[in-house]
Amino acid sequence: MRAEIVAVGTELLLGQILNTNARFLSQELAALGVDVYHRQVVGDNLGRIVRALEIARERADLIILTGGLGPTQDDLTRDAVAQLTGRSLAYHWPTLTRWEAFAASQGRNVAADSGKRQALMVEGADPFPNETGWAVGCAFEADGTHYMLLPGPPRELIPMFQKYARPWIRKLLGEENALHSVMLKFAGIGESAVEERLKDLVERQSDPTIAPYAKEGEVALRLSTKAATEEEARRKIAPVLEEIRARLGDHLYAEEDIALEEAVVRRLAETGRTVSAAESCTGGLLAELLTRVPGSSKVFKGGVVAYTIPVKKSVLGVPARLLEGADAPGAVSPETAAAMAEGAFRLTGSDFAVSVTGVAGPSEDEGKPVGLVFVGLAGRDLAARAVRLQLAGDREGIRLRAAKRALYELWRVLAQR
Amino acid sequence: MRAEIVAVGTELLLGQILNTNARFLSQELAALGVDVYHRQVVGDNLGRIVRALEIARERADLIILTGGLGPTQDDLTRDAVAQLTGRSLAYHWPTLTRWEAFAASQGRNVAADSGKRQALMVEGADPFPNETGWAVGCAFEADGTHYMLLPGPPRELIPMFQKYARPWIRKLLGEENALHSVMLKFAGIGESAVEERLKDLVERQSDPTIAPYAKEGEVALRLSTKAATEEEARRKIAPVLEEIRARLGDHLYAEEDIALEEAVVRRLAETGRTVSAAESCTGGLLAELLTRVPGSSKVFKGGVVAYTIPVKKSVLGVPARLLEGADAPGAVSPETAAAMAEGAFRLTGSDFAVSVTGVAGPSEDEGKPVGLVFVGLAGRDLAARAVRLQLAGDREGIRLRAAKRALYELWRVLAQR
Repeated sequence: MRAEIVAVGTELLLGQILNTNARFLSQELAALGVDVYHRQVVGDNLGRIVRALEIARERADLIILTGGLGPTQDDLTRDAVAQLTGRSLAYHWPTLTRWEAFAASQGRNVAADSGKRQALMVEGADPFPNETGWAVGCAFEADGTHYMLLPGPPRELIPMFQKYARPWIRKLLGEENALHSVMLKFAGIGESAVEERLKDLVERQSDPTIAPYAKEGEVALRLSTKAATEEEARRKIAPVLEEIRARLGDHLYAEEDIALEEAVVRRLAETGRTVSAAESCTGGLLAELLTRVPGSSKVFKGGVVAYTIPVKKSVLGVPARLLEGADAPGAVSPETAAAMAEGAFRLTGSDFAVSVTGVAGPSEDEGKPVGLVFVGLAGRDLAARAVRLQLAGDREGIRLRAAKRALYELWRVLAQR
Repeated sequence: MRAEIVAVGTELLLGQILNTNARFLSQELAALGVDVYHRQVVGDNLGRIVRALEIARERADLIILTGGLGPTQDDLTRDAVAQLTGRSLAYHWPTLTRWEAFAASQGRNVAADSGKRQALMVEGADPFPNETGWAVGCAFEADGTHYMLLPGPPRELIPMFQKYARPWIRKLLGEENALHSVMLKFAGIGESAVEERLKDLVERQSDPTIAPYAKEGEVALRLSTKAATEEEARRKIAPVLEEIRARLGDHLYAEEDIALEEAVVRRLAETGRTVSAAESCTGGLLAELLTRVPGSSKVFKGGVVAYTIPVKKSVLGVPARLLEGADAPGAVSPETAAAMAEGAFRLTGSDFAVSVTGVAGPSEDEGKPVGLVFVGLAGRDLAARAVRLQLAGDREGIRLRAAKRALYELWRVLAQR
């Protein structure tokens, strides 16, 4: 089964709103094992919507339209689908009756009000009542192609999809052979290095499939297979998963789609330990990532953004001899990174502390190049130490990678204890 | 001029990432006065990309592709465009040289590494160097259609668009009667409140046009007019701008497209003053926003993420009587917000300090409801004070709004001194 998503709305083409519906539908269709090879966005223009549908029906078995079901003359999705398929439009009576009662209660002129357009659907289609709005959705088949019309506002689309559209598609697919998948998340390694190390596997492997997914600052792979049961899917995926664990176990921080900071917070919570942070070039991003995770208040004691030399000395207690004088290692050095971690550890009383100091750019600092970063670690039973990194990218990219690498170094320490 | 946006990437079709690039490009093209009637999303498949381009060139003068310029065998945008237009691919030598030096410094096998693919562009096209990554962009004309290739990661696409793509399109449009626009940025007020206060203006105003421009956590309006010169455009925009300043001056923090944190950093730098931060529920986000701005190291002394009661007491010196005991106001209170700001001010020796404490959720805390937030301010010649906010949204939304409101309160104080 191949689906195509067609979003209708001039406000999308003007960039006034983000097309979150297309992403939601893409995710839902992927989870159902339905392939999506194309998406389109088209404005509120009858001819252009019809033409977009002509293109879509040449390459898809199921066309899902979203938007253009409102009450105004600009809302033309129903009309375009009716024109293309030679169908008529007809009222969905329960919606019309409900709407008329509402409009009358508001003192509107029920006969003249354009709002009743929202109760129109393609004649003979399966109706999808709208429980969070007025525009009725529907689905039907014509000349071998399936059409589904859904409203544009996400708070109408999402519940309608879950209650009516998903079961409709499941029925179309039959219950057999749904797609099952496992997401693998890696840290401390680049996307191309992961691909390099698994190249032979990716090439010879067809079931389960192995697909790389780049996310900002993260590397992910998805293993997917079609199977009748969860059990069968797990059995098919197991040997490949085992091989990947053997090759990349040092970097594989989760076998589900969670962020690295979430894996770190979980690990701390499971083992009843706490952490604190001391940051220079990341400017608060490391603490922000950790505290983004709900429940982090139980494991994250606090952090210091030591953006200047005096704060590094007075708040974190970094010795002046590391920071001042011609022979001092300076703010961007392994010695200072370790001392910053040690300082946060002592200041907050946490079990572990992690620090970052480096040059995020745009220009070099203390004669150190842009992208040079040191991550420091300290803790109970953990002698203060530092890891040297040379990161690429612009200021924002270096900051993000530095924060993620600090989380990775922390995750490695936690994984061993 | 009619443009079409073609986003390439299977990760989009699987719903793993949101197509924020299409929205960004839509907004930018609208600002340039270029019509966008269609957008497409297609996966990493050579034949399907070529077919999508065949459809696009029948209906657009300018096709902007984004994504598929990476190093892997799945990155096929360049190949598809070359195949469609009968062009060859050639290396952009400055990028190749830069990449080879980098790869060698990383100890990679330069000859065998697929990374150099990112230096390939369409032969004879105008190159767009990538200053925040490796993949080179380009633009050219073939058989009356203009093609532009841009990278997928937003942090590469946005700077490349601003520095290279926008001027390229402007030149294509000709300098005459270009669209000129002024972006107005507001803080401390919601989008609907801005629209309400300007409703009559928006409705009766046709030249310049007034269009809302939604961004995450920010409110913006764009005034646009077509004019032969900057001078003429300014003259046409002036009276409307004057009226908006009169109505919303307290919230209008910039008359250009800069983030609130940038306006704050600039104001501090211009007046030679410094600031520090003390955060609880924002967990480092406030410091992170400020330090995202290049040059912030001159005005931001440092911050404390006081995520727990002991850190609020020991590091920031918040009095125990505010935090402990049945009658204490508690961690989420105006008293604690003010004491946190006072603490950061004293600890870092900055001229001003700003603090945030509140309940970001997902559940209430100390019996205080989700979304209740206090912003504290302190400084030289500024008695410690607090502002109460009740914010809506999920955890991440509340954190972002809380940090932005703290910046707004700081901006108001700075604007008066």
